Parts: sequence; C-alpha cells; structure tokens
Amino acid sequence: MNQTTFLLTGFEPFGQSRINPSEQVVQQLATRRFEGFELATAVLPVHRTRGPQTLLTAVQQTNPDAIVCLGEAGGRHAISIERVAVNLMDYGIADNDGQLVQDEPIQPDGPAAYFTTLPVRQLMQAVQGAGIPAELSLTAGAYLCNQVTYELLHYLAQQQRDIPAGFVHLPFLPQQAAVRPGKFPSMALETMVTAVSTILHTLHNHLATS
Amino acid sequence: MNQTTFLLTGFEPFGQSRINPSEQVVQQLATRRFEGFELATAVLPVHRTRGPQTLLTAVQQTNPDAIVCLGEAGGRHAISIERVAVNLMDYGIADNDGQLVQDEPIQPDGPAAYFTTLPVRQLMQAVQGAGIPAELSLTAGAYLCNQVTYELLHYLAQQQRDIPAGFVHLPFLPQQAAVRPGKFPSMALETMVTAVSTILHTLHNHLATS
Amino acid sequence: MNQTTFLLTGFEPFGQSRINPSEQVVQQLATRRFEGFELATAVLPVHRTRGPQTLLTAVQQTNPDAIVCLGEAGGRHAISIERVAVNLMDYGIADNDGQLVQDEPIQPDGPAAYFTTLPVRQLMQAVQGAGIPAELSLTAGAYLCNQVTYELLHYLAQQQRDIPAGFVHLPFLPQQAAVRPGKFPSMALETMVTAVSTILHTLHNHLATS
Amino acid sequence: MNQTTFLLTGFEPFGQSRINPSEQVVQQLATRRFEGFELATAVLPVHRTRGPQTLLTAVQQTNPDAIVCLGEAGGRHAISIERVAVNLMDYGIADNDGQLVQDEPIQPDGPAAYFTTLPVRQLMQAVQGAGIPAELSLTAGAYLCNQVTYELLHYLAQQQRDIPAGFVHLPFLPQQAAVRPGKFPSMALETMVTAVSTILHTLHNHLATS
Repeated sequence: MNQTTFLLTGFEPFGQSRINPSEQVVQQLATRRFEGFELATAVLPVHRTRGPQTLLTAVQQTNPDAIVCLGEAGGRHAISIERVAVNLMDYGIADNDGQLVQDEPIQPDGPAAYFTTLPVRQLMQAVQGAGIPAELSLTAGAYLCNQVTYELLHYLAQQQRDIPAGFVHLPFLPQQAAVRPGKFPSMALETMVTAVSTILHTLHNHLATS
Repeated sequence: MNQTTFLLTGFEPFGQSRINPSEQVVQQLATRRFEGFELATAVLPVHRTRGPQTLLTAVQQTNPDAIVCLGEAGGRHAISIERVAVNLMDYGIADNDGQLVQDEPIQPDGPAAYFTTLPVRQLMQAVQGAGIPAELSLTAGAYLCNQVTYELLHYLAQQQRDIPAGFVHLPFLPQQAAVRPGKFPSMALETMVTAVSTILHTLHNHLATS
Repeated sequence: MNQTTFLLTGFEPFGQSRINPSEQVVQQLATRRFEGFELATAVLPVHRTRGPQTLLTAVQQTNPDAIVCLGEAGGRHAISIERVAVNLMDYGIADNDGQLVQDEPIQPDGPAAYFTTLPVRQLMQAVQGAGIPAELSLTAGAYLCNQVTYELLHYLAQQQRDIPAGFVHLPFLPQQAAVRPGKFPSMALETMVTAVSTILHTLHNHLATS
Repeated sequence: MNQTTFLLTGFEPFGQSRINPSEQVVQQLATRRFEGFELATAVLPVHRTRGPQTLLTAVQQTNPDAIVCLGEAGGRHAISIERVAVNLMDYGIADNDGQLVQDEPIQPDGPAAYFTTLPVRQLMQAVQGAGIPAELSLTAGAYLCNQVTYELLHYLAQQQRDIPAGFVHLPFLPQQAAVRPGKFPSMALETMVTAVSTILHTLHNHLATS
C-alpha cells in the first residue's frame, strides 16, 4: 500500500514585500511529520511562465494525492479558501520579472474557469472550528495565484487526474501590516500554520472516508 | 530606593463575547517577571460605576509609577494607542449590568477631555519596530474604555499625580473573529502580549531617561 | 435597416429592502429616448426559477443587439462591472420565495463559468470619465445576480447568439444606507442613471465601430 | 426684531484634490434664499494660521446666531457630524503653504478639547430622515478641520458667546473617488447640499423652539 502524499506550495515574495506568508508557512510545515500522509513542498516564483511551470513540475515529481497551493492576499482578514480559478491574466502589478499583463487569457483555448476540487466548505468549517477566521472566496484575483490554480486544474483535467486540488489565500503577516500606511488586517504566522495544518488533516480525513 | 511599579488593567468580557483579549493579555503578563519594574494588574468589570471604581481602587492600592489600561475594540486591525478621553458616555450596547447611557457627561463639572500622558508616539514606534501593526487613535469611543480613562486622568489631575497614564485598544482575538459574520481583523494573543510587553519596556526606558 | 435594440434589466427589491436601485435605474431610463438605439427593459423577480425565466423571455421577445443586466450589491462603493458568472448557487439569504440554496450548480452539465461579453474595460473607463467611481469585478457573487448572468450567457452560447451581454452591480441608494447600522457606501440615483446611460451610449459606439 | 443669520463655511481644495466638496456645497447654498434666516458664507484657506483667522474674521463680521463649518473627509461614507475638537495639530499631509505640524497644541494654554454646541443628535436624525446616511463622529482628526473648530469654540468660550457652533465632515464627491485607486465611498453634490440644507433648517427650528 502506498503512502499518501500531499503537495503544499507557497510563493516567493513579490511587490513591495521581502517576505511572503505563504513561503513561511510552507517552510514551517516542510519540517514537520504528519500522521497518515507525507508532505511534499515547493515555493513558486512570482513569474508569469516559471510560476506555473514550477508547480506542474512539482506535481509530476511528487505524484501527490491532493494539492493545496498557498498565496498572499494583502487586505484579506481571514484564511480565504478559493472556489474558482478563471482563464484571465490581469496583473495589478508586474511579476518579479517585470512583466505586466492585461486582459489576456491564460490558455487561449481553455474553458473560462475551473472550480477547485477541495472540499472547501468542510475545510472552512474545520479552520473556524480551530478558532481561526476563515471564509470561502469566489475570486482568487487575476494574478499569479489565480494563474497557477487555473493551470493546475487545467493540467489535472487534461491528465484526467481526479485528485483534490485548490488554493488558499493568506492575510499579511503582522510585520507586513506594521510597515504599511493603510489599515491592513494581519495574522500571526503560528495562526496560519495551525490553519494550514488543520486543512491538511481535514483533507486527509476527507480522503480516508470518501 | 523604591521599586518601580506599573499598573496594567484589562476588562472582563462584554456584549456577545465570552472572552476579552485585554483580560487574557493581563493574565498572561501577570505571571511574568520584568527587569526594572514590578507589574500590578487588575481586571475591571464592564459596569458603569464599578468599572471606574475598581480602577481607582487599584491605583490607590498599588501606587503605581505608570498606568496602562487595555480594552477590546472589535473592528480595529492594530494595537491602537489612545491620545484622548472625552467627558461623554454614549454606550452603543448596555454594560454588563444592563445599563445603557446616551449623551451624558461622565463628570458633569469636569473638562471636555483629557489627553493621555503616555509617550504615545514612542510607544507606537516601539510596537511597530517589533513588527506589530500599531496606530495612534484620536477616539477611545464613548463606552467603558473611554470612561475609565477619563475618570483615571481626572483623578490623577485632581490628585496632582503627574505619572504617565493612558489606554490601549486591542483588536479581536482570532477566535472572536472566527464566529462573527462580518470581516473582522484579528490578532493572535501572543502578538498582543508581545506588543503590550514592548509598551511596558518602552515606558520603563522612557521613565529611566526622562 | 433594423433599429438597434438594447435590453436593460433590473431586479425587484429583496432581503430587508423595499427598494432596489437597479429597478429604479431601469424605470428612469425606460422613459427616455436615446439616439441610435431603442431601449427595452424588464424587472426580474428575485426568485430562483422565475428570475432567469423572465430574463430569457425578455431576450426572446425583444431580440436585442446587446444586453445589460443590473443588480444591487450593498457594500460596493462603485459601479461594478462584472467580468464572469460562475455555475454556482450559494445564496447568503433566501430568495423572495423563501428558497435558500447552498453549493448547487445552476446547470449541472454546464461549464464552470462564462466570461461576460461586454467591452468591460471600455465601459469602466467611460463611467470613470464621466466622473463616477467604476471598477471591474471578478465575482458577481453566487445569488440571483450571478445566476441570471450565467443563465443568460449559457442561453446565448447554446443559441450561438454572439451579442454583447453582461452584468453591472450598483451600490446602495443613500436612503438604503441611511437606515442601516454599518458603514455602507451609497450612490445617488441620478449618478447611477448617468453611469448606466454612459454604459449604453458607450456600448452603442462600440457596436457602431466594431 | 433682528434677522437670524447663520454662518456656513467650507474649505478650499488641498492635498491631491483640485476640488473640495465643502467649498462646492457652500457655493451652491450661498445663492439660495432660506425662510427664517439669512446665510453668510466663507471659504477658508487650508493654511495653518490663515484658516482659523479667516473663520474668526467671518464670525466677527457677520455676528451669526449659529455656525456650521464644513470640510472634506475622504474615506467617510456618511454626513459626519463632529462632537468634539481637540487641542492638537498632527497633520497627515502639509497644509497648502507646505507646513507640516506634528504633536503640537493649537493653543498651548487652552483646554484639551471643546465639545461642539450644535444639537448633533437632532441634526443626525434629520439628515437620516431625509434619506441620507449620517453619523455622529467622536474625532474630527488633527488637521485643519479640527483646528478651525477648536479655535472657533475657544474664541466663543472666551467671548462668552453662547451660540450653537460645530463641524460637519463630508465624503468625497464621486469625481474625487473616480480617480483614486482605493475603494473610496462618495456622495453626490446634490445629496450633500440637501443634507446641509436640512441641517440649517433643523438648526433654525431648534433655535426657534429653545
């Protein structure tokens, strides 16, 4: 019998930030041991082509049973579980290679959108049950976070790989909000680590019982 | 030579909440040892008359060198250091005794307001320097938080006690935001404890050098 | 040569409201004369099945050259031009018939989403150019507004009717925000009427030049 | 019998703006005739010393029976009736003369604050009754709006002039919000004019019956 493997990814810092909560959560969880599953991790570049490529390469190399991608969403107050990824690139800021894309499809022949295939409501309730603010979100934006999710779900659909896969947006870390002029909500790293750990355990139970 | 003593107060839970971050921060710090000062603590009832009374009794009993009062401000995203307390009670919700007061002065013959006497900008910068969102606030509301601050500053003025005293509002804890429908920012207890500890140490350095 | 016809729809009031800005904008514009196009209008019931049915019936009866559906989005500050409609019903409140739907597809065999086919960026810029706040939105929610948009775009796709069609969310009217406890942005009816009129004229120029 | 005179003031544009809603409201109302009172108006410079001076000169020249000062508060969603002005200058941006002041008192020997003396709750209810969002505010900030209000109330107290006087903050106009990147609420000029006209009429009834 095979070991269950989950793939967890984050992003490198971008924009004005020199840190990214998703990278830090991945780094924290990469060193932990989980009962019932192994965790493979990757940190994706914030780069129009290399971001999705790095994710798909990690999928091919780790052959995971479920995939949770993480990213930063400054301005959100809660663990924000995405329901859908759309076939649109409309960057608000340039990627780390300086590329700025407006109103272009990710896959010119792809469908308008994919729904994520994680048990999103169950994950939200589990995170809330752990005393951490969580919400379902109907938009992952039109930047790299949405793009890697769309590319991932497009790849899995084409490969007919029926595994749970999706995206979770994280608020700013306190130290990111501390240096910004606006009134940005934030969340402690340890709270985020607990939330994502709860998501992974809930996902494991979900797979074990479905 | 006398030992320096700081008085730190919080509030008991009120409204829909069964917990109050300010009470929890006080409880966490009450058991710690600090270099250079002793910490006296009190938790105030959310009660129109007993709230201020409990604070003034604690001041008389502990004879502190500085006073920092804490309270909960659901909706704020940052450690919110108050600059002013106004001579007004205009409760948005009833206190824990069921009393609801509208548009009444705290002290009918008192001045319109007192400025708090903490080194507020220095404290804000110290908290931000610790990587925690902090802001200066020009209103502590018109509920118990404002009221105990006004009564405290009024008492100190009448007693001609020239010690630093003021108020700091705390965001919701994650578990409070997790069960509320709106999009409320929150902050981890440990982050708040670090922030308030930073405030106390900064205050100690301030007193030592002024 | 045929007269160009645009179909403009709004919704009846729902939830706590006895008025709906989209209905009022439609009523105001229904009596106006426009140069270059005729305007057909309809007000849709906030009803799970009759809402989309009323829209599709209006499309069949008026055979329009372009379709702009309007709806209320309390909490938004701007004229909010939707880019996408998703195949999901997840009502936050019951419809006017008392039906509450959670996590169900609109069309079990339909695609995950359709992009709207209005020239959305051009419309946003035209509204902004008229001095009115406007934005592009990546989510129309998962209530009736999203649902009628999805059903409309699904119908047009099946009929292979290649006409511009989409959805625009409107903020609360001032009188709606005036009676609500939270801090809701609002917009005057006349401002909304100017915005939607600007959208219709821009759409007409777009069709004339494309 | 003397004619009742009200003084209504606004501010000139400042910061990034080339318009100021308070100036425009004053200009609109300056040409109207009101039953029961005459309206004197002034537009104040956004200048540390000339702002308050221009206001006090207008008070001396017009000898009004009540004073309502208006100003812009970008970010607010409602007609925001101020309750208090504090003895503090802490400018977030420079005035129109390039002066930036931090943590200085307005009047070194003045009291910490003055309460405004308008019937604020009655005014709020009258504006809401006209279908326009209104709120009571506990802070007018620490910029020119607060400063002229403090100086006005300080002057009236020193002169023992017991007339209603206060300040009302206005949201951005739509054309101001339309060109800003953030999600700023706005309000139509005509809505603001109706609100301020309602305030003046309510104030007139208040004086007639008190």
